[in-house]
Amino acid sequence: MIKVGGKVVEEESSLNALLNDFTKLEGCKVLVHGGGRSATKIASQLGIESQMVNGRRITDVETLKVVTMVYGGLVNKTIVAGLQARGVNALGLTGADMDLIRSVKRPVKDIDYGYVGDVEKVDAVSLTELLRSEVVPVMAPLTHDGNGNMLNTNADTIAGEVAKALSSVFDVTLIYCFEKKGVLRDENDDDSVISSINRDEFKQYVSEGVIQGGMIPKLENAFGAIDAGVSQVVITLASAINESDGTRIKK
Amino acid sequence: MIKVGGKVVEEESSLNALLNDFTKLEGCKVLVHGGGRSATKIASQLGIESQMVNGRRITDVETLKVVTMVYGGLVNKTIVAGLQARGVNALGLTGADMDLIRSVKRPVKDIDYGYVGDVEKVDAVSLTELLRSEVVPVMAPLTHDGNGNMLNTNADTIAGEVAKALSSVFDVTLIYCFEKKGVLRDENDDDSVISSINRDEFKQYVSEGVIQGGMIPKLENAFGAIDAGVSQVVITLASAINESDGTRIKK
Repeated sequence: MIKVGGKVVEEESSLNALLNDFTKLEGCKVLVHGGGRSATKIASQLGIESQMVNGRRITDVETLKVVTMVYGGLVNKTIVAGLQARGVNALGLTGADMDLIRSVKRPVKDIDYGYVGDVEKVDAVSLTELLRSEVVPVMAPLTHDGNGNMLNTNADTIAGEVAKALSSVFDVTLIYCFEKKGVLRDENDDDSVISSINRDEFKQYVSEGVIQGGMIPKLENAFGAIDAGVSQVVITLASAINESDGTRIKK
Repeated sequence: MIKVGGKVVEEESSLNALLNDFTKLEGCKVLVHGGGRSATKIASQLGIESQMVNGRRITDVETLKVVTMVYGGLVNKTIVAGLQARGVNALGLTGADMDLIRSVKRPVKDIDYGYVGDVEKVDAVSLTELLRSEVVPVMAPLTHDGNGNMLNTNADTIAGEVAKALSSVFDVTLIYCFEKKGVLRDENDDDSVISSINRDEFKQYVSEGVIQGGMIPKLENAFGAIDAGVSQVVITLASAINESDGTRIKK
């Protein structure tokens, strides 16, 4: 299970490099992608301002249309066509397709995130059937509520939840790709990669301010996945998915 | 096999009515949709002018992005989520997904249509497996060339080609939905439906100017499907897919 962020999949050269590396991976595989930069760009061209809170997009009804177009259409199908050209039998999916990922619209507390979904249920049976048929799911960060609404859903969360669901059937390695070599001890030193981290060390790093911002929810997802039976979770460069670098998450 | 045009799927009330009717259809079923009006609207909002020749969209690289977003993302996923809410196990697809429909970029003769695909090959085996698993394909009017490029492809053509491919396995009825009750003898009289038409009558009507414009390629697709083994082809109102009205195409 490989999760790649928007930056990697939105630039032609890095996308091509990723698709080449992904093609080389053996065994059943799933690609989960982002697309936030393209969504922000298209939204802006359509006169829709992108509002972010804690790195999450406030998704009103017009923004939902944009992310459905960009994630489910443009980014997803560009990846699918690129993989098919490399002989990988890719199938683009959102959580609505085959009812694979059902979510609930995030309840409004301090902030109304709008049409944002918190994952409730992953259909591991259907995903397993696809994987057994040698289909390679390419998942957009979109789910649905079962009442006809698409919901914008964080790609890290989708990768984590799908990895958890599949871990009852498969020996799952979850790789979060990232623009750095891994979790860094010093954000100004790209080589200060923390090669492995457990939950106690994570808490310690957070309290010391070594780990902060968007890395905190990413690592929370990673620990959640390990606790739920995912065999390995790695945070690394997109260009290193076939290597043993990066940060390994331990129980 | 039901093909519905953009107008039906782009308005909430007609879309809901269609999805209710489609849900009631028994047996294996496939929905092919358009989305041209939304594509034109979004393109215009993005400052891209839509150029049409003989009812076909000239698809430059920017327009290809728009149709990939709108057909493959917005329209397709809205339908999929709507069908899932009705208990139909919909799966949104383009021709790139699972390599279902391979096309060739239309050769430039008098007109350069750009990234427009002429269908070369439909994978009836994979489609049949999906249908046997009770999955309901929802197909966007997009294919791919096998070299990493998506191609804009006429929805009537996709419906016809998929119907033909499936006719070796299934007893296929192909229904082209339309904003009129069927092929009309008098375009100003909505009740002047031609209840059945064969190829000789078609030629006669064309020579008399009774049938003209976009109805000609639609009927050509219809006759092609009947000749290739599709059991029934009907041109009717979207609201009549469960009824026996409309125009039936005979050999």
